[in-house]
Amino acid sequence: MQTRAIILAAGKGTRMRSEKYKVLHEVCGTPMIQHVIGNLRQAGISEIYAVLGHGSETVSNYLGEQIHKTIQEKQLGTAHAVRQWKEELQHEDGHTMVVCGDTPLISETTMQAFMDYHLKTGSKATILSSRTQTPFGYGRIIRKENGSVKRIVEEKDAADAEREIKEVSSGTFIFDNRMLFEALDKVDNDNAQNEYYLPDVISIMRDRGARIEAYVTPDFEETLGINDKVALANAEAILRKRINTLHMQNGVTLIHPEATYIDAEVEIGADTVIHPGAIIRGSTKIGKDAVISSGSEIKDSIIEDEVEIRQSIVTESRVGRGTKVGPFAQLRPQSELGEEVKIGNFVEVKKSQLDDGSKVSHLSYIGDATIGARANIGCGTITVNYDGKNKFRTEIGQDAFIGCNSNLVAPVSIGDRSFIAAGSTITDQVPEDSLAIARNRQTTKDGYYKKDN
Amino acid sequence: MQTRAIILAAGKGTRMRSEKYKVLHEVCGTPMIQHVIGNLRQAGISEIYAVLGHGSETVSNYLGEQIHKTIQEKQLGTAHAVRQWKEELQHEDGHTMVVCGDTPLISETTMQAFMDYHLKTGSKATILSSRTQTPFGYGRIIRKENGSVKRIVEEKDAADAEREIKEVSSGTFIFDNRMLFEALDKVDNDNAQNEYYLPDVISIMRDRGARIEAYVTPDFEETLGINDKVALANAEAILRKRINTLHMQNGVTLIHPEATYIDAEVEIGADTVIHPGAIIRGSTKIGKDAVISSGSEIKDSIIEDEVEIRQSIVTESRVGRGTKVGPFAQLRPQSELGEEVKIGNFVEVKKSQLDDGSKVSHLSYIGDATIGARANIGCGTITVNYDGKNKFRTEIGQDAFIGCNSNLVAPVSIGDRSFIAAGSTITDQVPEDSLAIARNRQTTKDGYYKKDN
Amino acid sequence: MQTRAIILAAGKGTRMRSEKYKVLHEVCGTPMIQHVIGNLRQAGISEIYAVLGHGSETVSNYLGEQIHKTIQEKQLGTAHAVRQWKEELQHEDGHTMVVCGDTPLISETTMQAFMDYHLKTGSKATILSSRTQTPFGYGRIIRKENGSVKRIVEEKDAADAEREIKEVSSGTFIFDNRMLFEALDKVDNDNAQNEYYLPDVISIMRDRGARIEAYVTPDFEETLGINDKVALANAEAILRKRINTLHMQNGVTLIHPEATYIDAEVEIGADTVIHPGAIIRGSTKIGKDAVISSGSEIKDSIIEDEVEIRQSIVTESRVGRGTKVGPFAQLRPQSELGEEVKIGNFVEVKKSQLDDGSKVSHLSYIGDATIGARANIGCGTITVNYDGKNKFRTEIGQDAFIGCNSNLVAPVSIGDRSFIAAGSTITDQVPEDSLAIARNRQTTKDGYYKKDN
Repeated sequence: MQTRAIILAAGKGTRMRSEKYKVLHEVCGTPMIQHVIGNLRQAGISEIYAVLGHGSETVSNYLGEQIHKTIQEKQLGTAHAVRQWKEELQHEDGHTMVVCGDTPLISETTMQAFMDYHLKTGSKATILSSRTQTPFGYGRIIRKENGSVKRIVEEKDAADAEREIKEVSSGTFIFDNRMLFEALDKVDNDNAQNEYYLPDVISIMRDRGARIEAYVTPDFEETLGINDKVALANAEAILRKRINTLHMQNGVTLIHPEATYIDAEVEIGADTVIHPGAIIRGSTKIGKDAVISSGSEIKDSIIEDEVEIRQSIVTESRVGRGTKVGPFAQLRPQSELGEEVKIGNFVEVKKSQLDDGSKVSHLSYIGDATIGARANIGCGTITVNYDGKNKFRTEIGQDAFIGCNSNLVAPVSIGDRSFIAAGSTITDQVPEDSLAIARNRQTTKDGYYKKDN
Repeated sequence: MQTRAIILAAGKGTRMRSEKYKVLHEVCGTPMIQHVIGNLRQAGISEIYAVLGHGSETVSNYLGEQIHKTIQEKQLGTAHAVRQWKEELQHEDGHTMVVCGDTPLISETTMQAFMDYHLKTGSKATILSSRTQTPFGYGRIIRKENGSVKRIVEEKDAADAEREIKEVSSGTFIFDNRMLFEALDKVDNDNAQNEYYLPDVISIMRDRGARIEAYVTPDFEETLGINDKVALANAEAILRKRINTLHMQNGVTLIHPEATYIDAEVEIGADTVIHPGAIIRGSTKIGKDAVISSGSEIKDSIIEDEVEIRQSIVTESRVGRGTKVGPFAQLRPQSELGEEVKIGNFVEVKKSQLDDGSKVSHLSYIGDATIGARANIGCGTITVNYDGKNKFRTEIGQDAFIGCNSNLVAPVSIGDRSFIAAGSTITDQVPEDSLAIARNRQTTKDGYYKKDN
Repeated sequence: MQTRAIILAAGKGTRMRSEKYKVLHEVCGTPMIQHVIGNLRQAGISEIYAVLGHGSETVSNYLGEQIHKTIQEKQLGTAHAVRQWKEELQHEDGHTMVVCGDTPLISETTMQAFMDYHLKTGSKATILSSRTQTPFGYGRIIRKENGSVKRIVEEKDAADAEREIKEVSSGTFIFDNRMLFEALDKVDNDNAQNEYYLPDVISIMRDRGARIEAYVTPDFEETLGINDKVALANAEAILRKRINTLHMQNGVTLIHPEATYIDAEVEIGADTVIHPGAIIRGSTKIGKDAVISSGSEIKDSIIEDEVEIRQSIVTESRVGRGTKVGPFAQLRPQSELGEEVKIGNFVEVKKSQLDDGSKVSHLSYIGDATIGARANIGCGTITVNYDGKNKFRTEIGQDAFIGCNSNLVAPVSIGDRSFIAAGSTITDQVPEDSLAIARNRQTTKDGYYKKDN
């Protein structure tokens, strides 16, 4: 049986107080609408149609070719939004979920169970509902004696007894597709806002004798729509908890999960310890037995087993097994560290390859460089990779020893096992096994202090 | 109608276990008593009188000339404290709020509504009350059938039925001023502590036929007094939430508001993102579309639109539009950065002006310097501003290029478009369009490694 | 009356998803089993016997000689585990507490009160119980009319009325020692898991007429066993709150206690302020009026009064009164800082002594060095302590002034009041009161920019 979804994403979201379209606001690093798309796909619904708002090029560009898109030129209500897909979809068989683009917390599990319930009951329309102790403001689900749904009553229209009802509509529905579009034509805008409301479809279908059901999700929180940045932070906390609980169940140790920030796609191995305040973003993969300290921010990187990252920033890089980074280091994009490498404090690495066992322990800049195995880069070493116009590469051989406060003026290569004296500015190639020095001899003037004071 | 307030601030606060007077402890960066003063002023009460404790010079010095002050030499109770202002105030008309200096959470809105209620009802004394499910230890409000207040009954004096009452006194009152001072003379210290208690004024006034009211605040939390550091942390959390909710409602994106630390006076533009753990203090103003990362601490600074501050410390500085700072940088006081400036990792700037488009990307110290537009300051550059006795200035022209690991020994100036070779120590003026170099040529000794090992 | 404890620590803890034995997982920096041992000792129970699992060498090695240990070769249930001590203990008088190694939150106060209750009532077995609104899954305490315990009924065996009982067993017991071992012989494994269950001892003893009691702890949370990493994080939060509340009651100011990470053994003086995100570990002692900022991590160190540590890492070091460290500095092991020292940003200190009033303000590495009082170490100074094979020491006299970007090639000594010119690489001894310089004079080539472009 064919299933599809229509995502309502036309709302600008004025209460967000933002120049950004509502559905592009991120929850745990991913725009809301992408959460909805991802959850639909994982629930097995791959035909997805979005209704975007007028002028929402940023949303359209963001979505690219992921899903079908159309524009609702005027925002005349949710029924009107769905009707934008009438021409393409009205003659299709199957079942259509209508879901808001600002409900990123409805999990794939819930979406799947919701669809299963709809198909199993054979109803023509199924409402995703939930129960809450504070139903004020939500449409209440009015059920018949047989348990099926009679109608949804909005807050303002509810009788006192109806207001006591704790089961509320989430604004998410599954419809028999043909009946949906037939009913949409009957929806009017005879209300205070002069809008065409999607929930009216329910009454219209019921009046035509269709069976209506509601599937009650166990978790009211899942159905929350995000209308302002308070709700956005709340959604972030809920999703953060969901993500972090999964990691903990998989054996990751989180010292303070409420204050550990892991994006939805991150993978982490067992027995890795993530300390409070760490931020792990994007498509990062972390191995087993690693330690990620407080104050670390890792994005789109591969961190292998037994790595230790302390108070450091790692972006689009790869860190090999047993390597230690930090505290207070930065690996900028395209840094590739081998195994058992040491990157110490106040070290920046950019677009460089460091082979196994090499060490850059303090106060250095390694940019556009290749460093051989076991090379020791002294404190204060700088690869001088930029002449004001172009960038050049530095090559350092294995077992080389670079003295402190050296400048390696690229393009330059230092041979295997060579030794650079501290304080040297190296401009010419240094062959293997050699010593290079470029500094002045020391002169000492006795009695300077007395003379001068 | 004249309104004034008396702040009771004589308590040392022994449960704080502190050398500091209780009312000077800070909540979200501001001493408690300053919160009370600020809230009173915003509620339109500008005549403020404080009662300070014996020996509280630090409180008196802190307050300066902000409000009227007197000293309660011996701490004989709250009624005795208020009586310290008898001579000055007993013949004044109008209404006097008596509020404790350790209740910083009573908002200006509540204070205003409380005063409005007092004036509207025409009562002679109004108690600020609230409802709590855990009233144990608080004075209960006993109301008459007509809804006005009969008396306050303390925990120890309460009958069983009275103990069930959930409406409690906050210890904040508004009185008809003349009646207050008349009643204060009648308060005795015939109790276990031999203290003169302010709530006794209520019974005295009622016995004289005065109408007593209580204004019920919707939020019990607001009325909490702070007696120890557990309560202080709790107040901090409540005020933090209040501040951060306002910012989110204004369009600021906070990823984890419970772990974002923003002082009360800070201003932030819409669509700026503040990451968890960021600390924004004092009189800082941040523009729109900025990003303040985790691990950043900004104090008394101006941060313009589209600025990005990552894992950096910024104090008493100004950062121009589109400038990027960090990660791991420090802007010390009097740093003035233009637009589209880049300050990279492990860079310290102090008392310096950096013009638009200039770059200090890594491992540098820029102190007492002026840097021209688009100048590029190489990695490891140090402005040598101190000779052990005095500080001197460095001037770098626009489009200058300072090679890596250079020392610029101040006072010194580098002309526009000049070029300093890497590894140079520059002591003399460098005219515009020139090249300066101060380093030795490289010598290379082949076979060093073999010889030496 | 002799008291002892048997700790059940044989479980591997498969739900932890860890290579590490369950009882070695840390809560606030200390392995669970060590919490249990410490709490027992503080409750006055010093004879402690553990039952370890097959292959748990890591647990055995961790425990060392602290307590008596034996191995349960096959995990045949808790009764079988206790029986491993039969030979040694069956003829001993006195009382034996049996406690799980995964319940680190049972406080010493509770253990003491539990034992006192057992001894006072003269019961032969006492169960540590507590009350919970969500008793599902726990063994319920069935009491007789006289209040003593009839039996423990497990979830699966409970009648509907029994399921409503809110008092549950914690799995911790105190037994008359001889009766315990006699009863253990009667326990069978006639159940679904074919295990020998310790709670069965209760019924066996009761059937023999022994009086059974239950001591109800006021705090259900204390009795939680830790079976997976979600529970581990939860336990961490509970213990963190307990630790931090004590510090606040002692006058330490914590801005956000839920996000402040202090190990159990740390000592902190009054009026010290610990900012959110700070991590204070191991045996650290901090004095009064100190400030520890966000982003700081201090381990096994002595921090004296009025010290300020900002965004810095301090390990196995000592920091004297009034010294300021950071932001972004690292004190590695064996750093000893005197009073009123200043360590500024991007400075690393290792195995060095810095005397009173000395300053290392920026971008320096001080390793294996001794620095005299009031010496000023310029920005970018590096002690070149490593030649690729050995480490050597640097000695700097008092009131010395080291110019910026200097290399001090160890072994080397700089005399009192001596002056090193900026940019020098110093390889020879510098006597006191002298000036040393080792750099080239500046050459300036006019018109370079025009020529080259």
